Parts: sequence; C-alpha cells; structure tokens
Amino acid sequence: MRRYRLRIPGPIDLEPEVLAYMSAPLIAHYGQEWVELYTETITLLKRVWQTREADVFLMPGPGSIAMEAAIASLAGDTHKLLVLTNGFFGDRWVTIARLYSSRVIVLESAWGRACDVDAVEQTLKRDREIKAVIMVHGETSTGVLNPLKEIGEVCDRYGAVLVVDMISTLGGIEIAFDDWHIGIGVSATQKCLECPPGLAPIGVSPRAWELIERSKGPGWYINLRTWQHFAREWGDWHPHPVTMPTGLTQALRFSLQNILDEGLPQRWARHTAMARLVRNALKNLGFELFVPNDREAMNTVTAAKGHARLPAAALIRALKEKYQILIGGGIEKLSGQIFRIGHMGPTATRDAIVPTLLAIEDILRSVGVAVEPGQSLRAPAPVMGPE
Amino acid sequence: MRRYRLRIPGPIDLEPEVLAYMSAPLIAHYGQEWVELYTETITLLKRVWQTREADVFLMPGPGSIAMEAAIASLAGDTHKLLVLTNGFFGDRWVTIARLYSSRVIVLESAWGRACDVDAVEQTLKRDREIKAVIMVHGETSTGVLNPLKEIGEVCDRYGAVLVVDMISTLGGIEIAFDDWHIGIGVSATQKCLECPPGLAPIGVSPRAWELIERSKGPGWYINLRTWQHFAREWGDWHPHPVTMPTGLTQALRFSLQNILDEGLPQRWARHTAMARLVRNALKNLGFELFVPNDREAMNTVTAAKGHARLPAAALIRALKEKYQILIGGGIEKLSGQIFRIGHMGPTATRDAIVPTLLAIEDILRSVGVAVEPGQSLRAPAPVMGPE
Repeated sequence: MRRYRLRIPGPIDLEPEVLAYMSAPLIAHYGQEWVELYTETITLLKRVWQTREADVFLMPGPGSIAMEAAIASLAGDTHKLLVLTNGFFGDRWVTIARLYSSRVIVLESAWGRACDVDAVEQTLKRDREIKAVIMVHGETSTGVLNPLKEIGEVCDRYGAVLVVDMISTLGGIEIAFDDWHIGIGVSATQKCLECPPGLAPIGVSPRAWELIERSKGPGWYINLRTWQHFAREWGDWHPHPVTMPTGLTQALRFSLQNILDEGLPQRWARHTAMARLVRNALKNLGFELFVPNDREAMNTVTAAKGHARLPAAALIRALKEKYQILIGGGIEKLSGQIFRIGHMGPTATRDAIVPTLLAIEDILRSVGVAVEPGQSLRAPAPVMGPE
Repeated sequence: MRRYRLRIPGPIDLEPEVLAYMSAPLIAHYGQEWVELYTETITLLKRVWQTREADVFLMPGPGSIAMEAAIASLAGDTHKLLVLTNGFFGDRWVTIARLYSSRVIVLESAWGRACDVDAVEQTLKRDREIKAVIMVHGETSTGVLNPLKEIGEVCDRYGAVLVVDMISTLGGIEIAFDDWHIGIGVSATQKCLECPPGLAPIGVSPRAWELIERSKGPGWYINLRTWQHFAREWGDWHPHPVTMPTGLTQALRFSLQNILDEGLPQRWARHTAMARLVRNALKNLGFELFVPNDREAMNTVTAAKGHARLPAAALIRALKEKYQILIGGGIEKLSGQIFRIGHMGPTATRDAIVPTLLAIEDILRSVGVAVEPGQSLRAPAPVMGPE
C-alpha cells in the first residue's frame, strides 16, 4: 500500500517515538505497575485539560463512544437537552441525543459560522427544563471554532451541564475545563494528542455527576456510573471495566508529557501561527475560506472552497496522486465543495504545511492560474481601517 | 517498567511481526485503499468464523462494547432473553441484559461446570416468548468450555437467536458460525486472534437481523443497525461509523492470514494438545483442576486450585517475582482460590508452556514439595477401563 503524508484533519502523521510504543511487547492491564501508568496518564491529561475537579477516564474506542456515553449517562426524561449544531459532528450529537431522549431541542447555525451565544442564552432563559447543553468545540467538518468559554459562562449562569466534543481541539487549542464551566468533555487520541486512534478521554465535573445520578441512564459500558464504580472499587488493581490498550496508553503518556513540556500557551500559539499561515496562504492563492470570519476559525483545521479554475475534488486528487499528500474533502452536504487541511500537533509545523502549500501552488499553475513560487507565503496585505 | 512474559488468559505475548504493524505510519481510515484492506480483513475473519451468511463488522473498542451492542440491538420488550451463566463473564452478560430488558431469565450453572443443554431446551420449550439465548463459549474466569454446538442446535429447533461471547475461543477452538446456528458472535483481537486489544469483531446472522429489526433497540454506536447502515451506504469509502485503528487492522489482517495458513483444524489440534499438556502437568504436580471434567475444559485457558502447600496467590507471586512470568488469578468469588494459565496462539506452544511448568516445579520444591525435574511433563497414567 502506497504511503501518503497525512494532512487530513486527523489521524495525522505521528512522531516515530510515539509509534515505537505501539509495537512494544504487551503488558498486563491490571496490577500495581499498570495502575501507576494509568494514573500517571490520567494526571497528565487533567493538566492538559486544566482541571482539578473533573474525574477523567480513558475509554477504549473512538471519540463517538465517549460522546454516546456522555449522552446516555445524563439523558433522563425529567429534563430537556439543548443541542447546538453547525456541522456534521454537531448533527451527530443531535442524532445520538434523539436516540436517548424524547426531549431534545436543537439550535442550528449555518455551516461555516459559529454557534450563537445569545441564542443559547435566550433559549436557556425561556426554558428552565433544559439541564444540559451539548456542543462541538471545533467542528472538524467545517473548520469552525465555537465560543466554548462564552457558552460555558451562559451554562453556568443557568445551571446547565455543558457537554463538549473536543476531539479536534484538546491539546491544540486553549481549553480550561474548570474555569470554563465544562460538565463533560470528550476527546480522542488521534488528533492533537498526537497518538493513533483507540482511546477516548472523557472528563466529568462534579456538577455533571449530579445530573448523571439523577438521570440513571441505561447501559453498562456507555454508562459513566460503571466507570466511576470501577475507579472507586477496583482502583488499585483494575480501575476500568474492560481490557485496556496498554501500548496506546504508554504512547499517550509520552505524548501528554511532550505536550506539557512544550508548554500549553506555547502550543496554542504554535497552532494559532500555523492556522494563520494556512489561511493567509489560501487567500493569497485566491481561494475563498469556508469560515469567513477569522475569529470563528479553528486553529487545527482549515477549510476552503474550490478555486474558480480548480474544483476541490481535483485539488485533493492531484495532491494525492502527484504529491502523496492526503487532505480532507467535504462531508455530506459539503461533499465536492470544500477541501480541508489539518494542522494538528506534528502537522501544525512549517515542515508539514509549507510543502503542502507549494504543492497547491504547482497544481494551480498546472491548470493555468498565474501563481509565483512562494506566493502563498507572502505576508498578508495591510488591513485597511481599524482591525 | 519491568517486562513480564504474559501467560495470563489474554492479552498475550505477541509475535514481533504483528507488533511491527502497530508502529507503522498511520494511514487514512477511508478511501479506496483502506476499503480494500478493511474488506479483506473482514473476508479473512469470515473464514476463521466459518461463515458465509453472517455480516461481520470490526468495532473499535473492547469485546464488552460488542457484547453491549449485541444486547442493545435485540433487546425489545416484546420478547424475553435467556442468559446462561457459569462464571464472571456470563454474569457480565446478565448485568448488561438486565440494563436493556426487563424480561431476562437467567439459567445458572456452577462455576467450573458447563452449561446444561437439557435445561436450556426445557426452558425454551416451556417459554415460547424467549427469542434470544445469550451465553459465553469459553468462560475465561473458570476455564470452562460451554457446549456451543449443542446449544446452537437447541436454539435452532426453538427459533431462538443465539448470542455468544467467543472472546477467548475464536481462532483457538473450533467454531462453525453457520453450521452451529449462531445468531451473533462477539470476539476481541487480544486473545487467540494474536493481536493487541482494540477491535471487537462482531458477526450477525440473517436470523439475528430479523430480531434486531423487530426490536429497534436504542443507541447509535451500540446499535448494529448503525453499522449496517454505514456498510451499505458508505461501503466504497467509509464502511463504518467511526475512525478506525488502521495499524491494528493491518496487524489483524496479518494474524488472520497466519491463522488460516496454519490451518484451522491444525490450529484447534495444537490448542487441544497444549491444553492436555497443561492439564496433565498440573495433575502430575498434585494440583486439583478447577474444571474437573476434561470434556468441559477450554483449550485456551486452564484453571487450577492452590496446592496444599502452595496457595494460588503465593504461586502467582513467585512466578512473577522470581521468573518474570505472569499468570492470572481468580476473579471475584474465586479471588485467591485459583490460578489461571492462558495458552492462546503464540502462548499455546511448548516454548511458552514448558518453562512455565518447570518454574512451577521449582516453586513447589522451594516450599518443600517433593517434585522431580520434569515430573510435570510425564505421560498421564494409563486410563483404567473404557475411555
């Protein structure tokens, strides 16, 4: 199988030091040595999430299983859920929420625009039966970053538990779990946490536990009370209900330590700088960004529409076939309309980004667009008027 | 972290060729190349399961998530579920079944003895509302092999869908999915499939689909209809609902091909021979096997009680500390009473077993039991009377 450089919005090309853990001999997923490794990994994860209050678990499986666990655990019939959506992964929240509750309210925003904080506040003010707000932090399907901190403040004011998909942002974009009043946070290892897929970190605040206790949701693996039970009752031997991927846990511990060694603010700044580089470059080359407002754009994924002379699908195909570079396409209703470039962890570097941009320049030239070498890298034009 | 040889009942020590796939660069989990790899892996898995009729999926996560998916998908309130249990993992089926259905009947057998086929038949005959029978094939907590083929025949006669945990048997002990009338089979990669944990194969027969369609169970990831939808609608691009662990899928394909190259009958015979070696050895050394009847014993896990002079916990500790060999202990009500040796795939070999047996001989001698070197390996005493 031919190898491609992964510039898709996750999974990403990983550092060989991380991959090396994956092929280490297996170790037992119980006993004192294992519990030390597991606990240390959880501790590092709490630091990356900036939480002292939340319980954190490592759930084997994809991010979606942790999303389902969050919903299943707190969807009771005594209260309503408010789901915000402005993309494919927001819609997945809607799908899952409706499968577990008959009392789901959906607040939709246009794909490519951020969720509307005022609308959330108005909805919570009007309907005091809403006990949880469910949203995506970084909407990977469009490249939109939703205003998590602001929505967290609103939820706190109205006593709603905030449930957040942070799959494409944790480790790349600022998140302050406790200070931003997050109730349940869900992530996955294969994006900015710089590991292969296979574990879904899930964090649960004390306020979220209260709602979970009242809700008494269904299921075993997908019920967070099962995870709490094993952490409490089997804590010094087997603090989780199932067999764990031990190599991936070792890889994750290594990555988390790397992330903390880089420094969280430095890391967020790096992702900001690289996102600016990509957005500016695509504008320089005449592409229209799918997220028009820079302040609403994710720093880990950039989406743009096809060029007048180069449809998105043709660009994706040429990058793959001529340059062995994989970038993402549009999902569902954006299929064929946009392309998406991931810049996460090791791919949020000039090493990964600049060759991709130069390849895009080549491809544009090959279809007759006048592009000078390095045009994508030029500084942005001075902003006219107040910024 | 000190490295131990894993002679526990899974995960097991793996071949370096398998581990090498785990540290290969990631590939995208969608697109033509990926679908070819995924489809080929499923095809090999069907051959190991001996099925032409079942749909097979690879569910990221532990075996338990596939167990939960099986139950969630077919537990409706219009029918009853019959759960057979004779151990810790049978009890897990009971726990999960009761979380999804209020109409669960439990048929218990003693831990260490096989499920009673006649009792299953009598129960199905008496209660025609039972539409599914749920059981464990190899009960890893005790080393009992339940009579799957016979129960399959009974289920077929009474029109019940048979749901089976084959986590510790698939790839080591004979299973004929179609011929034995299996409805849903659940497994995991970290036992006889000779891979790290992280994927749960699940097979679904046409008859099981009928019950699933009628049941309309809850959930998204845990509902098999979601998996069917993606396989059908996204089959040539992304035939599964979530991100897949691509390295593990490559490792699994490699292992499955190895398993088929060895030959299924040859492989079952190897596990039979190695189980006999272990059982005979433990008897030679004066241990009492936890499964008294050879015909009810698993060929992939052997459990025995502590020796008069050497409690199970002391044996486990000495093997770990003095010989760097990890074997399993008893779970829950068997805690401290038994020890368990896994002999699965690469550990179902004399290379893995004989040094373990010789270490046990040493440890017995060290506590004053008279054991001659190699006593464990002696041939069994001739059987008196008709075998």
